[in-house]
Amino acid sequence: MGTIELKAGERLDDLQRNGYKIIQDPEKFCFGMDAVLLSGFASAPENGKVLDLGTGTGIIPILMAAKTKAASLTGLEIQEESAEMAGRSVLLNDLQDRITIVQGDIKEAGQLFDAASFDVVTSNPPYMIGGHGLKNPDGPKAIARHEVLCDLEDVVKAAARLLKSGGKFYMVHRPFRLSEIMVLMHQYKVEPKRMQLVYPFADKEPTMVLIEGARGGRPRLTVEKPLIIYESPGKYTPEIYDIYGY
Amino acid sequence: MGTIELKAGERLDDLQRNGYKIIQDPEKFCFGMDAVLLSGFASAPENGKVLDLGTGTGIIPILMAAKTKAASLTGLEIQEESAEMAGRSVLLNDLQDRITIVQGDIKEAGQLFDAASFDVVTSNPPYMIGGHGLKNPDGPKAIARHEVLCDLEDVVKAAARLLKSGGKFYMVHRPFRLSEIMVLMHQYKVEPKRMQLVYPFADKEPTMVLIEGARGGRPRLTVEKPLIIYESPGKYTPEIYDIYGY
Repeated sequence: MGTIELKAGERLDDLQRNGYKIIQDPEKFCFGMDAVLLSGFASAPENGKVLDLGTGTGIIPILMAAKTKAASLTGLEIQEESAEMAGRSVLLNDLQDRITIVQGDIKEAGQLFDAASFDVVTSNPPYMIGGHGLKNPDGPKAIARHEVLCDLEDVVKAAARLLKSGGKFYMVHRPFRLSEIMVLMHQYKVEPKRMQLVYPFADKEPTMVLIEGARGGRPRLTVEKPLIIYESPGKYTPEIYDIYGY
Repeated sequence: MGTIELKAGERLDDLQRNGYKIIQDPEKFCFGMDAVLLSGFASAPENGKVLDLGTGTGIIPILMAAKTKAASLTGLEIQEESAEMAGRSVLLNDLQDRITIVQGDIKEAGQLFDAASFDVVTSNPPYMIGGHGLKNPDGPKAIARHEVLCDLEDVVKAAARLLKSGGKFYMVHRPFRLSEIMVLMHQYKVEPKRMQLVYPFADKEPTMVLIEGARGGRPRLTVEKPLIIYESPGKYTPEIYDIYGY
């Protein structure tokens, strides 16, 4: 492994897992708790093949590499700068034998990868509908957060095409999209099998939903106990500390 | 109002609302917390028309009569004995000007009532799929709990047909059916708009889901804060005491 250089504006963050670090640029997009919680919620079989749709900084493949014994993890990212930066984080952690970053479009994932070739597909896609009213719809933050370049259906459709029969799809999203998520997962035969709502406090509305689907599965959902983020303002619950690896 | 007589095996329970009481037969079927929580979750416009699909003892129309200013509440019940008993509870509470119990089949609700004629449809339908393996599939408890005489699709389809445009559908069900519920509500254009999961304890899996749909609504779901039943074993949370009207 050669020396990995940081570019202007970039910073290096410690992931508290296996000594792994990640390069981020706060001006563009930093990973959030959602990516960490998704990595905690997801699993992968030993020697399995994992694909992350819209990988951004590469945070999910890197955390999944730390957590699982998956043989290969691929991160697909449309934005050239993000993909390049994710590639440097892979090298920095000496993970190039397990993680591959591919620059490309989720809408063309069916041409980029073989159908039914992955055991697991993960995604932390843009949450917000459309890009209307955005000041800077082409900016990296807008593309990561809003459905400018791909929408929920594109993500579910790609996952359905690329997963093996019985393969698992793991996604984090916002609860206000839950009905659409379930309808699309059912439509594309990635049946919702497990769900966990993430609540900032025990007496507040949930801000995230973690969902697991099975390619070709039958309808029967397990809703897990609530995942509460804060015990008191500024203090995480033991569950969150555990997922973060402290 | 004449004297209302209890039959052998029946008992009279106080509903803690407006002095209302209800006749139940423990050998057949007693209402559960689900019906009470659904009545707490649902609302009805002043002078509105409400229909309860599969009303059983009539518990939901009676609690909704206490809680709302709905002008008319109709309870549809297929089982003759339950419908007759519900009718006596209506008379007992002197509610015959507001509540009507109709004996009939949810699958024929489209012929029994005018299309698009209700502001609100409520339902606490059978939760369990099919009637296979039941010792006594024709018994009143089996019919109330298992999809012997009607299934989830029959209920959603009837609600969609009978609700006015913009009318509200309120249902309580089991979380393991959530994906099917959302798919069917979307399919029949009763879009899920509000959902609350009911957890026995804050650190346990939810046992019930309360869901509100809007006829002809657009997809956007509000997931409410968790509804926790017990603060400690045997002691309800303040929210539950409040819904029960203590």
